[in-house]
Amino acid sequence: MKNICIINGPNLNLLGKRETSIYGTTPFETFLQNIRNEYKDITIDYFQSNHEGAIIDKLQEVGFTADGILLNAAAYTHTSIAIADAIRAIKAPVIEIHISNIHARETYRQHSFIAPVCKGSISGFGLDSYRLGIEALLKNA
Amino acid sequence: MKNICIINGPNLNLLGKRETSIYGTTPFETFLQNIRNEYKDITIDYFQSNHEGAIIDKLQEVGFTADGILLNAAAYTHTSIAIADAIRAIKAPVIEIHISNIHARETYRQHSFIAPVCKGSISGFGLDSYRLGIEALLKNA
Amino acid sequence: MKNICIINGPNLNLLGKRETSIYGTTPFETFLQNIRNEYKDITIDYFQSNHEGAIIDKLQEVGFTADGILLNAAAYTHTSIAIADAIRAIKAPVIEIHISNIHARETYRQHSFIAPVCKGSISGFGLDSYRLGIEALLKNA
Amino acid sequence: MKNICIINGPNLNLLGKRETSIYGTTPFETFLQNIRNEYKDITIDYFQSNHEGAIIDKLQEVGFTADGILLNAAAYTHTSIAIADAIRAIKAPVIEIHISNIHARETYRQHSFIAPVCKGSISGFGLDSYRLGIEALLKNA
Amino acid sequence: MKNICIINGPNLNLLGKRETSIYGTTPFETFLQNIRNEYKDITIDYFQSNHEGAIIDKLQEVGFTADGILLNAAAYTHTSIAIADAIRAIKAPVIEIHISNIHARETYRQHSFIAPVCKGSISGFGLDSYRLGIEALLKNA
Amino acid sequence: MKNICIINGPNLNLLGKRETSIYGTTPFETFLQNIRNEYKDITIDYFQSNHEGAIIDKLQEVGFTADGILLNAAAYTHTSIAIADAIRAIKAPVIEIHISNIHARETYRQHSFIAPVCKGSISGFGLDSYRLGIEALLKNA
Amino acid sequence: MKNICIINGPNLNLLGKRETSIYGTTPFETFLQNIRNEYKDITIDYFQSNHEGAIIDKLQEVGFTADGILLNAAAYTHTSIAIADAIRAIKAPVIEIHISNIHARETYRQHSFIAPVCKGSISGFGLDSYRLGIEALLKNA
Amino acid sequence: MKNICIINGPNLNLLGKRETSIYGTTPFETFLQNIRNEYKDITIDYFQSNHEGAIIDKLQEVGFTADGILLNAAAYTHTSIAIADAIRAIKAPVIEIHISNIHARETYRQHSFIAPVCKGSISGFGLDSYRLGIEALLKNA
Amino acid sequence: MKNICIINGPNLNLLGKRETSIYGTTPFETFLQNIRNEYKDITIDYFQSNHEGAIIDKLQEVGFTADGILLNAAAYTHTSIAIADAIRAIKAPVIEIHISNIHARETYRQHSFIAPVCKGSISGFGLDSYRLGIEALLKNA
Amino acid sequence: MKNICIINGPNLNLLGKRETSIYGTTPFETFLQNIRNEYKDITIDYFQSNHEGAIIDKLQEVGFTADGILLNAAAYTHTSIAIADAIRAIKAPVIEIHISNIHARETYRQHSFIAPVCKGSISGFGLDSYRLGIEALLKNA
Amino acid sequence: MKNICIINGPNLNLLGKRETSIYGTTPFETFLQNIRNEYKDITIDYFQSNHEGAIIDKLQEVGFTADGILLNAAAYTHTSIAIADAIRAIKAPVIEIHISNIHARETYRQHSFIAPVCKGSISGFGLDSYRLGIEALLKNA
Amino acid sequence: MKNICIINGPNLNLLGKRETSIYGTTPFETFLQNIRNEYKDITIDYFQSNHEGAIIDKLQEVGFTADGILLNAAAYTHTSIAIADAIRAIKAPVIEIHISNIHARETYRQHSFIAPVCKGSISGFGLDSYRLGIEALLKNA
Repeated sequence: MKNICIINGPNLNLLGKRETSIYGTTPFETFLQNIRNEYKDITIDYFQSNHEGAIIDKLQEVGFTADGILLNAAAYTHTSIAIADAIRAIKAPVIEIHISNIHARETYRQHSFIAPVCKGSISGFGLDSYRLGIEALLKNA
Repeated sequence: MKNICIINGPNLNLLGKRETSIYGTTPFETFLQNIRNEYKDITIDYFQSNHEGAIIDKLQEVGFTADGILLNAAAYTHTSIAIADAIRAIKAPVIEIHISNIHARETYRQHSFIAPVCKGSISGFGLDSYRLGIEALLKNA
Repeated sequence: MKNICIINGPNLNLLGKRETSIYGTTPFETFLQNIRNEYKDITIDYFQSNHEGAIIDKLQEVGFTADGILLNAAAYTHTSIAIADAIRAIKAPVIEIHISNIHARETYRQHSFIAPVCKGSISGFGLDSYRLGIEALLKNA
Repeated sequence: MKNICIINGPNLNLLGKRETSIYGTTPFETFLQNIRNEYKDITIDYFQSNHEGAIIDKLQEVGFTADGILLNAAAYTHTSIAIADAIRAIKAPVIEIHISNIHARETYRQHSFIAPVCKGSISGFGLDSYRLGIEALLKNA
Repeated sequence: MKNICIINGPNLNLLGKRETSIYGTTPFETFLQNIRNEYKDITIDYFQSNHEGAIIDKLQEVGFTADGILLNAAAYTHTSIAIADAIRAIKAPVIEIHISNIHARETYRQHSFIAPVCKGSISGFGLDSYRLGIEALLKNA
Repeated sequence: MKNICIINGPNLNLLGKRETSIYGTTPFETFLQNIRNEYKDITIDYFQSNHEGAIIDKLQEVGFTADGILLNAAAYTHTSIAIADAIRAIKAPVIEIHISNIHARETYRQHSFIAPVCKGSISGFGLDSYRLGIEALLKNA
Repeated sequence: MKNICIINGPNLNLLGKRETSIYGTTPFETFLQNIRNEYKDITIDYFQSNHEGAIIDKLQEVGFTADGILLNAAAYTHTSIAIADAIRAIKAPVIEIHISNIHARETYRQHSFIAPVCKGSISGFGLDSYRLGIEALLKNA
Repeated sequence: MKNICIINGPNLNLLGKRETSIYGTTPFETFLQNIRNEYKDITIDYFQSNHEGAIIDKLQEVGFTADGILLNAAAYTHTSIAIADAIRAIKAPVIEIHISNIHARETYRQHSFIAPVCKGSISGFGLDSYRLGIEALLKNA
Repeated sequence: MKNICIINGPNLNLLGKRETSIYGTTPFETFLQNIRNEYKDITIDYFQSNHEGAIIDKLQEVGFTADGILLNAAAYTHTSIAIADAIRAIKAPVIEIHISNIHARETYRQHSFIAPVCKGSISGFGLDSYRLGIEALLKNA
Repeated sequence: MKNICIINGPNLNLLGKRETSIYGTTPFETFLQNIRNEYKDITIDYFQSNHEGAIIDKLQEVGFTADGILLNAAAYTHTSIAIADAIRAIKAPVIEIHISNIHARETYRQHSFIAPVCKGSISGFGLDSYRLGIEALLKNA
Repeated sequence: MKNICIINGPNLNLLGKRETSIYGTTPFETFLQNIRNEYKDITIDYFQSNHEGAIIDKLQEVGFTADGILLNAAAYTHTSIAIADAIRAIKAPVIEIHISNIHARETYRQHSFIAPVCKGSISGFGLDSYRLGIEALLKNA
Repeated sequence: MKNICIINGPNLNLLGKRETSIYGTTPFETFLQNIRNEYKDITIDYFQSNHEGAIIDKLQEVGFTADGILLNAAAYTHTSIAIADAIRAIKAPVIEIHISNIHARETYRQHSFIAPVCKGSISGFGLDSYRLGIEALLKNA
């Protein structure tokens, strides 16, 4: 039985409430329940924080035991070398996830410090990006 | 009766102690008391943190109920896309406040991630910048 | 009794007629009358020109006698070192005023030659930016 | 029954022969057979060319009838505005696919003209990136 | 008797476990014990955090009483204006420490927001960089 | 009967005298007479000034009544946001005209603040660029 | 009797079908028939290709015999030094044509490799840009 | 008998009053009288304006008859392509003059549009820069 | 007996006709005959195309059997990552050839995507650059 | 017994005379005597030159026999690839030394060609930087 | 009696032989003799070297006794921080001299490391630039 | 009988000792002997220096009499405008030589100040680059 951890970064706790034209109206918890139902033989740990440091703490905590990590670092994708260093330091493969197509938005969202140290990257499919990330881990981790 | 929240970012807890030639010698608490006396019919909530994540937490907490927010994000003004995203996500109008004229300082203080998502911006008037921000909210929020 | 001068730059004579979704529908003269009524014990001189040189002439003319100047240099904000030099050369404190939030517009509107030599900057509050500028001068000039 | 088209760009005909430490040793045709076996109720059209113009021709040909397109434009990802314009012009959703993690390679591979006009982007999972792309189209197209 | 504080930034808690070809195999705690034994007449306070805000809190806490601070801000070296502002605000001299030669690594590790506000900088000597920092403080603080 | 206004910017009053290898030997007045003879049923107003402000004044004066404006802003093309703002503010369509092929000259002549707010742009045909501009207005204004 | 050649670049074969809010609803063939009717004493050769190389081949084929060439290189305008070199190499004058005002679109459409080696440039008048190009050739070629 | 024209740009009418630590306390008129006394056999015309357009008008007026022009364009040095074009268009040799050493000031004062089209450049000698300019014209014009 | 392939890029078919002051008046075929006569024991295959894709096709075709390739990619030198990828993918050593000294021409000709993946580079000796390339292959391939 | 060589670059022979507010008043010879007294069992060779080439000659001379080199390349730090190449070519470990905190000075002093090829870097401690360098070599060389 | 030193940088020993269309045909020695005859009461020391280090040696040698220095650093103007540091370190005022108008030449000749630390700068008057430099020193040193 | 001069720049005296994986193990003197044996009817003068100034001195010494010069300026290739100016000033054709493929190394080795003023450039063939340079001179000088 595989252990997968989903880590969501800043403001993703507002999912379903915030900028729904971009992010949709489903709260992440609802989606998580669905995905747990769909993938019954996987343990899916979930963590969200608005704190860069807390995301690093979590990556370090699960990074030596999980079979894979899905990380949507949100805005920290573009500013955090520290999170990238944490990914470099741990053993579990990390997959970069984005709900929206970040390449179609502001210029400063087109550089990712995190992408080069992840195994791969999936973006633009709404919440389904997470499911594809699980699929990717099942085949590739 | 209006509810306004003042949020101060990193190192502003040292106001009155730190670099007094730039920031003056009045502690923020003293100033806050004066302003509460002057604007008796407004509830002024106050929050300071050195943590980017804590500022986001606070913006989310008050952002759907306050009538307006004065945000002096200090150094995070220039580095935090995550705080800008939080402002985009909430409903209360946010006004960017700076004590000093940031345009007269280092080059890296001349770009603000936060300004484009705020209603307006007031800088350079010392602590009086906050009072002007309240005036602005009273007329415009 | 204080003397304050408001100087408006290029195309602001079209206020109320031009791009009303950004600048509103009130002509500046109407607003000026209101503000003079509100601040009866202040003399408010007003000047508008589309000419960079005329703005410099005016700054020099009032810059050694006025108690403060509100300058909305409009497009010249981003291109005129000469106006910035005039502000450096005079004695009256100058406050940079903008009706719209210039930081939310084109990239080339995000650099101001004028901001570094002004006492402070107020932008984004519509015509109320000018009233806040007067408030700022009354307390700080 | 869905129609999906896979379009591969320059040098991907050498897959399995070329730089195998980056791209693996499986020829694309072998992989394609496997994927057709796995997704029996989907018609998968396949096209490869080293010619930018031929890729545009193909996008136009299938772009108004296919249910979705997986495009690995390889080097043209980083240089072709013309392919991006073709994607803009057609109706079928296009998903950007990369075998390797392009963000971990040369700087000039970190900008994609194609990403902003695609529905989403999947990279770094070897040939499995294509399978994930099909999964994405099935749920999202 | 002198009071010195060592502050370590993100991911340095993994020292000895993480990327040992760059950072070596000695846990920081082992090194710290050695150094305390070597410098018996100095009190060496030690603090590590993955949180930018917590590093600022600590700098403020010890910054008015310690005789000197050794700060290895790790990834925050390159992104944190807020930590640089904290150093500006306190009284104790701060020395920038790096274990590896950051100038021989990625381009984005070649700019330091922190170096300009520190007394001096020592990098590239492995854990011995900290001992040299203590030597520097003893002679220069 | 249509009203068209031709506005020429700095140094174009020297046409026929100045740098004749680039601009030719015909004075603009001679050309204007020919063009008026050729287009008898159009009223062609003509204005030239070396003053950025005067060009803005003229654009505002004719911009709400003329059927179209041909603007050769010469050097101001590359430096004047104020003229671009004037074009944005008025109602008449404006066509950017250049006598020489500005793209074949100095790098700083390759950016135009004015082009993005004009209806279209014609350059490189000598004085005939103006005639083509009139043709364009007749069909498109 | 003059020979003129119109060369259209990538995706212009979709004219009338693609992004009609930008490019209009008239297919190019319809427009071409009209223009041939209007200019009966000119032979107008027409060529469209999505292939950069084919455009170069055509330029070389007609470039020593045609009286003039109208080239709308579409996306290749911004990326093709090879087409620019072909224009340099041939004898016929080439005029750069664009349907839309490219200066009002994405930043990467604001640099043209082709403009500096053309006689002149016409953009922004819809399909009428081609007619103006013919007018320009008749007077200037 | 030679005719020389001195043209001073924006804010130089405040010489002796403005920023005297940089520009000294002598009004330009006093200096001019001295220089006319020293060079009795030269006619020295003098013109100052804060208007870019007026400087161009003057350059055109004297540029075909004067034996030489000393131009201190002040802030317009760094922003005016139009003045540079006027210098290109006239016949009289123009010498660029600056009172202060502009290279030791703000970065944006280190680029001159005017220098490349002048015969030579003299800066940093206070008002004596003008006398050296006259010396240069006497030997070289 | 060695097999060498010479591949010429866009517009080099016009050699002897085009811009003869830069490229000389000898057609490449004449030169090729001379070189085949001079190097009788080498088979020299020759290919020219204006199509980027055709150059890649050819590189792939000969790249696993030829003893060496001389590639003058002309304009594609500066724009084609796809050709560079083809060179990376094949086994034969490739030498970059240029007739003119590309470093003495336009800035955009000073970056080569191809040079870093070639064995070496020879430029500036007219058609003799090709002969030197053969000499280089004979000694080094 | 260890052999260490100290190499000082341009203008450091003026130490104690030049810009004493930055560099202090102690001549280097005085300091050198002190340091030789303190480290009696080390041979300290000393060399200073204003010539880039002479510094390279010296590095080559001692670079294969010394146990370590302290190099304060002064201004050549920022401009000399040739010195960096010499360091790459020799065997002795080289430590970069600076008296002042170069990061707190002009922007062009913030890039070092030398740092990436040195073992480590020490700056900002006045002449004590050299002593710390010796300490570093004793432990690490 | 004043002591002035003229220091010429690389390739200026070829004056009169080299690129005479830019630098003229007079050898510097001939010019020097004329200038010594004209200024009989000044001692003019002269030094030329192609070595950056030798120029620094000379600046240090005369920099504490000469009344002024004329420095034409030629190509080192644009690359030598070390010479700029030498000027900073000495007491004699240094004037930057150039024979040609460097602003009208290659872009890389438009930045001077030396200008900001000189008293003033004179360029473009041929060899007469030196005479003007002496005039400047007589009045200002 | 032809006179050719080979000039080698900094650190090339270490050839055969230094970074042998890049530069090979043959000392230049051994290679030189071989080449003199191969080209018996050519006089080959040889000079190496680590001093930029000495290279300029040598270029001037041989530059008016030699039939050609092979210059491997090593690191000075990328930093020396002074050497480039010397090449411009002399009459003998100069060929730029590099042992390694500099385009495949650090970014700062990809710009050459010297290439634009040389007749041609040969790089990447190890020491054979020099022999090819002689071949080039024999045919082209």
